[in-house]
Amino acid sequence: MSFQIHTTSLEALYADTDAMGIVYYGSYYRFFEAGRTGYVRTYGEELIRAIEGGEPYFFPVTESRCRYRRPAKVYDLLRLETVLRNVRRASFGFGYRLFRRADDVLLAEGETDHTLIDAEGRIRRFDEKVRAFLDRAAGSQTTA
Amino acid sequence: MSFQIHTTSLEALYADTDAMGIVYYGSYYRFFEAGRTGYVRTYGEELIRAIEGGEPYFFPVTESRCRYRRPAKVYDLLRLETVLRNVRRASFGFGYRLFRRADDVLLAEGETDHTLIDAEGRIRRFDEKVRAFLDRAAGSQTTA
Amino acid sequence: MSFQIHTTSLEALYADTDAMGIVYYGSYYRFFEAGRTGYVRTYGEELIRAIEGGEPYFFPVTESRCRYRRPAKVYDLLRLETVLRNVRRASFGFGYRLFRRADDVLLAEGETDHTLIDAEGRIRRFDEKVRAFLDRAAGSQTTA
Amino acid sequence: MSFQIHTTSLEALYADTDAMGIVYYGSYYRFFEAGRTGYVRTYGEELIRAIEGGEPYFFPVTESRCRYRRPAKVYDLLRLETVLRNVRRASFGFGYRLFRRADDVLLAEGETDHTLIDAEGRIRRFDEKVRAFLDRAAGSQTTA
Repeated sequence: MSFQIHTTSLEALYADTDAMGIVYYGSYYRFFEAGRTGYVRTYGEELIRAIEGGEPYFFPVTESRCRYRRPAKVYDLLRLETVLRNVRRASFGFGYRLFRRADDVLLAEGETDHTLIDAEGRIRRFDEKVRAFLDRAAGSQTTA
Repeated sequence: MSFQIHTTSLEALYADTDAMGIVYYGSYYRFFEAGRTGYVRTYGEELIRAIEGGEPYFFPVTESRCRYRRPAKVYDLLRLETVLRNVRRASFGFGYRLFRRADDVLLAEGETDHTLIDAEGRIRRFDEKVRAFLDRAAGSQTTA
Repeated sequence: MSFQIHTTSLEALYADTDAMGIVYYGSYYRFFEAGRTGYVRTYGEELIRAIEGGEPYFFPVTESRCRYRRPAKVYDLLRLETVLRNVRRASFGFGYRLFRRADDVLLAEGETDHTLIDAEGRIRRFDEKVRAFLDRAAGSQTTA
Repeated sequence: MSFQIHTTSLEALYADTDAMGIVYYGSYYRFFEAGRTGYVRTYGEELIRAIEGGEPYFFPVTESRCRYRRPAKVYDLLRLETVLRNVRRASFGFGYRLFRRADDVLLAEGETDHTLIDAEGRIRRFDEKVRAFLDRAAGSQTTA
């Protein structure tokens, strides 16, 4: 099975925290962006080729969600696991799990959903071949 | 029916945007915080009294979600509507709808869920009387 | 004398603070952006006309500075005063003073310097007539 | 000579950029925080010991400055050099130089000045011995 987990090392800075003494709830979405950027950097050539023609593309977020389990604190060293999920004709998603490295405690979980658009803002579709590739990366069955 | 909608005026700054030319997906959570802060400022005396004893309290976010409908752009003047929702024994939530003021188009919708804790980090419960008050503000039936 | 002060009302959110319990040092630069955006919104028609031809323009920051006098805290209501300064042939600046509204205490002071560029990234110059106008707004003598 | 340069690897994310298509001017201050955090992580034991008693301490920023030379763009891989500077009785500073790793071009330079305070917010002083140590790290003569 080819389910791919990309791991990113992060550190919580004061910039990420708030006056409650913990990481601000919105800052986790920055962490998630670091995770999917690392994912695309690592597996990206295939992802890019997976788009017909291989032209420049963007994948704006259509939905985001985060569930906060334990607070992250300043200077915490963090491990973020990112996976590809829900690959569809013109959309896909990422799933995230954030751990504190010192004791492997799960701090937060979340997801982002994306559509694929080209430089002109038009929605692009994956062709069958590349969708099959992405399905393998996501380790799941394609739906709808 | 006493369903309360709090309205906040916001402006998208460069600080909120990213290199896609639109507001960054994580920045909406800052907007949402502005909305619930305004809500608490307006209805807060009751909210604060609603906690037994009226001591200092915090309401950390346990889950957040945002669905992006249309992109907000720099200098867009925005109207955020915030409502209280899902009032329970020791938790409650806010719902948000963000509109572009120029044409009243819905740009994003989201929710945050919160628990109520005191200065020592202990979970606090609303008593029956205040929960009844909050239920009226939320315009919904209390659940679980 | 036509020295113009633009006043902006701001509120410190949790998003702006850090785990030291005060506003993060970098967040003041977001406040400053809100100040100059308000300035340009108010006096902007003239500023825009002041650029030959009145075409779309940008004014990227070439230098920024902030001196922190007293810490701002979450929920503090703030008053930011913004002035135009150092108008030159192809550059200008803004000066900022941030006060806590409750007691008028000065919390921070800063400056940003800008060049004026057009949509193609070329540096634009003010002509003599508009520079005279801007000098009056800045309430200072033009230099070099 | 023991002048210490700490090097930090960074990547510009969409979160750091704005709708001008480049890194937001305020985001450089987040980069700078990453630099000084790395510095303190590396040389910190001595820095911490350098404070009488070795108690918990904070070093709030009293002034910050940044000069923007060339724009950083999304996905740019960056190298930040951080040095200690201006060690005084109860204050010190950091200097920063940010480079694009692809071609070693200098993108930005800046400084932050700090005072040293303890957990109660009182200003702390370095004793002579530790100041001598810090002076060597800073590679400069102590002033005032």
